[in-house]
Amino acid sequence: MSHDELVRDRRHLHAHPELGFEEHETAAFIAERLRSLGLEVRMGVGQTGVVGVLRGPDASRTVMLRADMDALPIEEENDVEYRSTRPGVMHACGHDGHVAILLGAARALTAAPQAGSVVFAFQPSEEIRPGGALAMLEDGLMHNPSVDAVFGLHLISEAPVGSVRVRSGPWLASSDAFQAEIIGRGGHAASPHQTIDPIRIAASVVTALHSIVSREVAPLDVAVITVGTLHAGTLANVIPPSAALGGSVRTFDQPLREMIAKRIEETVLGISRAMGGDARVDHRFGYPTSVNDAAMSSLVETVAREVVGDSFSSCDLSMASDDMAHFLQRAPGCYFGVGTANEARGLTAGNHQPRFDIDEDALPVGVEMLVGVVKRYFERG
Amino acid sequence: MSHDELVRDRRHLHAHPELGFEEHETAAFIAERLRSLGLEVRMGVGQTGVVGVLRGPDASRTVMLRADMDALPIEEENDVEYRSTRPGVMHACGHDGHVAILLGAARALTAAPQAGSVVFAFQPSEEIRPGGALAMLEDGLMHNPSVDAVFGLHLISEAPVGSVRVRSGPWLASSDAFQAEIIGRGGHAASPHQTIDPIRIAASVVTALHSIVSREVAPLDVAVITVGTLHAGTLANVIPPSAALGGSVRTFDQPLREMIAKRIEETVLGISRAMGGDARVDHRFGYPTSVNDAAMSSLVETVAREVVGDSFSSCDLSMASDDMAHFLQRAPGCYFGVGTANEARGLTAGNHQPRFDIDEDALPVGVEMLVGVVKRYFERG
Amino acid sequence: MSHDELVRDRRHLHAHPELGFEEHETAAFIAERLRSLGLEVRMGVGQTGVVGVLRGPDASRTVMLRADMDALPIEEENDVEYRSTRPGVMHACGHDGHVAILLGAARALTAAPQAGSVVFAFQPSEEIRPGGALAMLEDGLMHNPSVDAVFGLHLISEAPVGSVRVRSGPWLASSDAFQAEIIGRGGHAASPHQTIDPIRIAASVVTALHSIVSREVAPLDVAVITVGTLHAGTLANVIPPSAALGGSVRTFDQPLREMIAKRIEETVLGISRAMGGDARVDHRFGYPTSVNDAAMSSLVETVAREVVGDSFSSCDLSMASDDMAHFLQRAPGCYFGVGTANEARGLTAGNHQPRFDIDEDALPVGVEMLVGVVKRYFERG
Amino acid sequence: MSHDELVRDRRHLHAHPELGFEEHETAAFIAERLRSLGLEVRMGVGQTGVVGVLRGPDASRTVMLRADMDALPIEEENDVEYRSTRPGVMHACGHDGHVAILLGAARALTAAPQAGSVVFAFQPSEEIRPGGALAMLEDGLMHNPSVDAVFGLHLISEAPVGSVRVRSGPWLASSDAFQAEIIGRGGHAASPHQTIDPIRIAASVVTALHSIVSREVAPLDVAVITVGTLHAGTLANVIPPSAALGGSVRTFDQPLREMIAKRIEETVLGISRAMGGDARVDHRFGYPTSVNDAAMSSLVETVAREVVGDSFSSCDLSMASDDMAHFLQRAPGCYFGVGTANEARGLTAGNHQPRFDIDEDALPVGVEMLVGVVKRYFERG
Repeated sequence: MSHDELVRDRRHLHAHPELGFEEHETAAFIAERLRSLGLEVRMGVGQTGVVGVLRGPDASRTVMLRADMDALPIEEENDVEYRSTRPGVMHACGHDGHVAILLGAARALTAAPQAGSVVFAFQPSEEIRPGGALAMLEDGLMHNPSVDAVFGLHLISEAPVGSVRVRSGPWLASSDAFQAEIIGRGGHAASPHQTIDPIRIAASVVTALHSIVSREVAPLDVAVITVGTLHAGTLANVIPPSAALGGSVRTFDQPLREMIAKRIEETVLGISRAMGGDARVDHRFGYPTSVNDAAMSSLVETVAREVVGDSFSSCDLSMASDDMAHFLQRAPGCYFGVGTANEARGLTAGNHQPRFDIDEDALPVGVEMLVGVVKRYFERG
Repeated sequence: MSHDELVRDRRHLHAHPELGFEEHETAAFIAERLRSLGLEVRMGVGQTGVVGVLRGPDASRTVMLRADMDALPIEEENDVEYRSTRPGVMHACGHDGHVAILLGAARALTAAPQAGSVVFAFQPSEEIRPGGALAMLEDGLMHNPSVDAVFGLHLISEAPVGSVRVRSGPWLASSDAFQAEIIGRGGHAASPHQTIDPIRIAASVVTALHSIVSREVAPLDVAVITVGTLHAGTLANVIPPSAALGGSVRTFDQPLREMIAKRIEETVLGISRAMGGDARVDHRFGYPTSVNDAAMSSLVETVAREVVGDSFSSCDLSMASDDMAHFLQRAPGCYFGVGTANEARGLTAGNHQPRFDIDEDALPVGVEMLVGVVKRYFERG
Repeated sequence: MSHDELVRDRRHLHAHPELGFEEHETAAFIAERLRSLGLEVRMGVGQTGVVGVLRGPDASRTVMLRADMDALPIEEENDVEYRSTRPGVMHACGHDGHVAILLGAARALTAAPQAGSVVFAFQPSEEIRPGGALAMLEDGLMHNPSVDAVFGLHLISEAPVGSVRVRSGPWLASSDAFQAEIIGRGGHAASPHQTIDPIRIAASVVTALHSIVSREVAPLDVAVITVGTLHAGTLANVIPPSAALGGSVRTFDQPLREMIAKRIEETVLGISRAMGGDARVDHRFGYPTSVNDAAMSSLVETVAREVVGDSFSSCDLSMASDDMAHFLQRAPGCYFGVGTANEARGLTAGNHQPRFDIDEDALPVGVEMLVGVVKRYFERG
Repeated sequence: MSHDELVRDRRHLHAHPELGFEEHETAAFIAERLRSLGLEVRMGVGQTGVVGVLRGPDASRTVMLRADMDALPIEEENDVEYRSTRPGVMHACGHDGHVAILLGAARALTAAPQAGSVVFAFQPSEEIRPGGALAMLEDGLMHNPSVDAVFGLHLISEAPVGSVRVRSGPWLASSDAFQAEIIGRGGHAASPHQTIDPIRIAASVVTALHSIVSREVAPLDVAVITVGTLHAGTLANVIPPSAALGGSVRTFDQPLREMIAKRIEETVLGISRAMGGDARVDHRFGYPTSVNDAAMSSLVETVAREVVGDSFSSCDLSMASDDMAHFLQRAPGCYFGVGTANEARGLTAGNHQPRFDIDEDALPVGVEMLVGVVKRYFERG
């Protein structure tokens, strides 16, 4: 594994970040690399997505490896030679590393042919919902060849470089959003009886929503309902006709997720109507929970113990969300974490921070993990 | 007018108070007095009610004068010779005076025959809902003779002795009550998700009820919704199956009164159901608003100016409630106040207080008012 | 009284409306008129205010008559020949009529000299707080000559033309405003524990504010607390650092007004701190209650019965607000209503509506009222 | 291991249940059994607690095994020959089994002497707070000999007989209680402004308490705040002077537990004062979280795999609470579950149910676990 090439690729990508579904240069860069390895390459899979296929002798077995490739609308504050060259756009979530690692894995796996086929999926737009995973799936990503198992990794700043973290079962949260319009009737501030005050209703709705998690969700289950926006009115002496609120929901369990969506709608409508008004609720389901298969997680753990020894550990649930979840719903797989923090070198800023950067020693760890996972998967027979 | 007789009667009644619908001795006392005047007397009109009729030459015109005669379940704290002889029962609202005054008026009006008939209605149980007025009405009180106008007075501790207070239009508030049962589902405190927490619902219901008056009633209208009782649960670590709350409502306007009853029910049911529970609401309409007729009020004002001169004044709405309201709904009339306070003599305790007492100089004022009102009413032709 | 001149003036003013403190043409027009009458004229009293003084023989007695002269930022929808010539500006509250009437009164009073002096105060900016009355007072309006009594009228669309309405004591409401900033701490929607959620606090604050009027204000007192604006957050998945709310308060009683201001601040601060946050409250006292002096109201009633006979009536409190209140705080006086509605002619639109217009027969009624009031005031000796 | 003796002991205890700190017969029964084994026996350790000590050759090493021995105030509904002979008292939580198992372990360990000492602690009153564990500790339970490690088991109806459940780290919840008195000022329902309405305050307090878990506790932490009782008022038309509420709290983390206690008090006081009232909060810390030591849990897991093979599994947090927690705070140890359910035999009723019963095949499993744990503990050297 050439560390130099990994670092070179990663720095090139870091310096040239692109936002979701705008990863044109990134896609071209990836495609060129994959073609140079002699792989079958498809572009435009899910708009800007790129797919490379390494055909193996056993056409009936296929593993997919996934990397997301979009950047964030953040102005980089790191003073490094590979600093983002694009104002207000930055690889602050490590997707540059994900791409470099997956290219490295492609090189390694091409060099030592495998029993089955390997699909290298470079996904656009993980950061912007509804996300690039669904777009790639709609373009048939997992059908030709038909994918049997899917793996991916995320560089994580909360674990030290050289470590690997895996969780069997749910790992990352589902993430949904809702918008509600409370419909009242406006009028003069001095004549509340001639109005239906939407701010009065909105206040009661927010308070009621805040007790769903505490009173209707099992204490051992995990859920968050946050109202992040609330807007009503333009003048202090006028009662406005309506109020708008927006919120987000995170869970780790599909029935709970659906229960909460139902209860949010019932609560908003019920409270609004009890107070003489009405409401409209638009609940938009975003990324599902990322659920790792037990056997695939065990396989990743085995590889991790080989690659990083005692620096492997299982990890807790994370409130983050990722559309890798869509792939994991369609084939057994495992999404795992590769640590990037290095306190001694000051590399501790969290993901999505303008000073986020990785210890690049994480890159070969990522490649070894992916290569090891593919090998061991095919060895299982 | 014999002041002595008024005081003697009043003190006798004060010493022998009886609770609502138990005014047996009081009724006998009254009937005896009325019979001694040669009046036609009916007993048992509305259980313990007594009616005396003074027939006048013009059978087509009849005025009714009303006094309520029940006492309160209060232990008297006054140290007077006519102190209540009955433990825990006291004329703390002046009904002893009302009866004495009306007997005095009967004497005076009998002595100087009038153009029409006068009905002297001694009503039981004003203090205990649903009240004696309805009971008397059900027994045909206002039909034989058919009553054309109705008058009454209330001794009021907030005005000085020698003064009279009248308000045209609404004077005393309507008074209604409600009981609500919030129906949830009980369970263990550590498993709220397996319950429907009625205390959570009850808290939201109370808060929502408290914004009806401020947001749904016109600022220039008057209304009170009070939740006076709230009970749920027996153990801190058990979620109870239900919560019970009770409240009362006061208004001065029938459509508003009905609107509030409707909104209380909608609010309790709507909030309960929005939170997954249910509810039962029992709204009991009590006394209506006491509404004085404009012409009858003007007549009382004219008499008052003759009787007390500048000590007459119009007065504001009062939050108190009285079932005189039922009579005023069936015939034009006027219910007015006669002051009893005398600061110099320490007679300032409010109605319903254990130290309430009246300056008995209010008694002849009351008699003159009633007699004057009847005379002037018949003079109007 | 020349009806023609009144109408001509009023229509000229109607066609040339000017917003508060921008009444330059209006002021020039008025000054020219007053000067032509030979009155002492002062301009720039309270920025664009104009004052005319008619000196009377008794230098120790002075009555002030007041008219407000600003228009509203409303696009007129009436199709009349004197329609506003200024886009988006309209005399929709009758101030054009107020000015024309006061000019008419000046003509009449100048023609028939009075015992004392009369100050004609043309006030700017009644519609925009903090209002022109304070500005005129700061410029010494009521000191030279020293004003003993103050009168004014408002054209009111809720009463028919030819009628006059007076209320002794409080008539128009005080009107105050408040802005509150709820200070929390922002963060990610999935990590509420690392934030102090200002939307949670704001919801509780609004609900608590809505129970002040229902639970802390006497049922027979009148008050409104309205929260008219509530704004927080920009993204559904981010908890914002703060929330802003704005509201308005109306009362008819100075101690109640101050109590409410205190309780709003205590409530916002107390709830915010109980939930771990903080708050800033900016309470801006606007116009006080307009309180009419009993004797001056009686004087106006006497005049009104002469001018409009049975079309005079006393009236109820009004939730509207006017900075005439400031003058009434400094001298006994009376602010009264002159009806303008004419259903047969379709003149029924309310004040501040784009189709508001007056029946101009109200103009001579207004002049006769003001002239009559001044005459009778000086006759009182 | 004599199954017969285990069953005989357990059935005797089941038939003769005693409530907390009243376990006199139970204690005598236990003491007699321990003495017959030749153990050093102490009675009255923590009121009705009994301690047996088996001295080993190495005086420096001591393991404590604990069983709780009290019954519940429940009327048994099982129709079995060993049914409770005491009306309204029942071993519905398996403590009869715990005692029988620990007596069996004492027999087995006495028969095959160990390297160190073993303390057999029979604890009173686990069901009634503040619990018998603290009482035993105050009487020096863990000091002579000085205990190095502590183990115990709980029979659990949610796992099948023959299975063992262990959780490293926190297993059972802490359990605390609070009482709050909201102090207002009472008065008449029609005069809320003369009162400080405690029901208004209580409603806001409950609602605010219900948002602490959802907005101030980390989504991945576990906590419950339940308000189980709320009582205020006796008459619908009277505002009471105060309101009383009681609640309970469960957590798995000591800092979180303390944070919640602090926030409950701040919330109750802050909201009460913001609304003009005051409050008293009495927070009573009950049982802490039962936290198993990682090494001791691993030891138990090793033994469990020997005893029940694949019927061992790790388990999730449980919302139940137990004062075994106090012992685990003072020495490393492990509290684990032994399954008792047998669906085929209809033994599925949950703990604390009147039909709770155990499959007695769980008894020898329990003995083998405790004996194995002691042996392996001393083998560790």
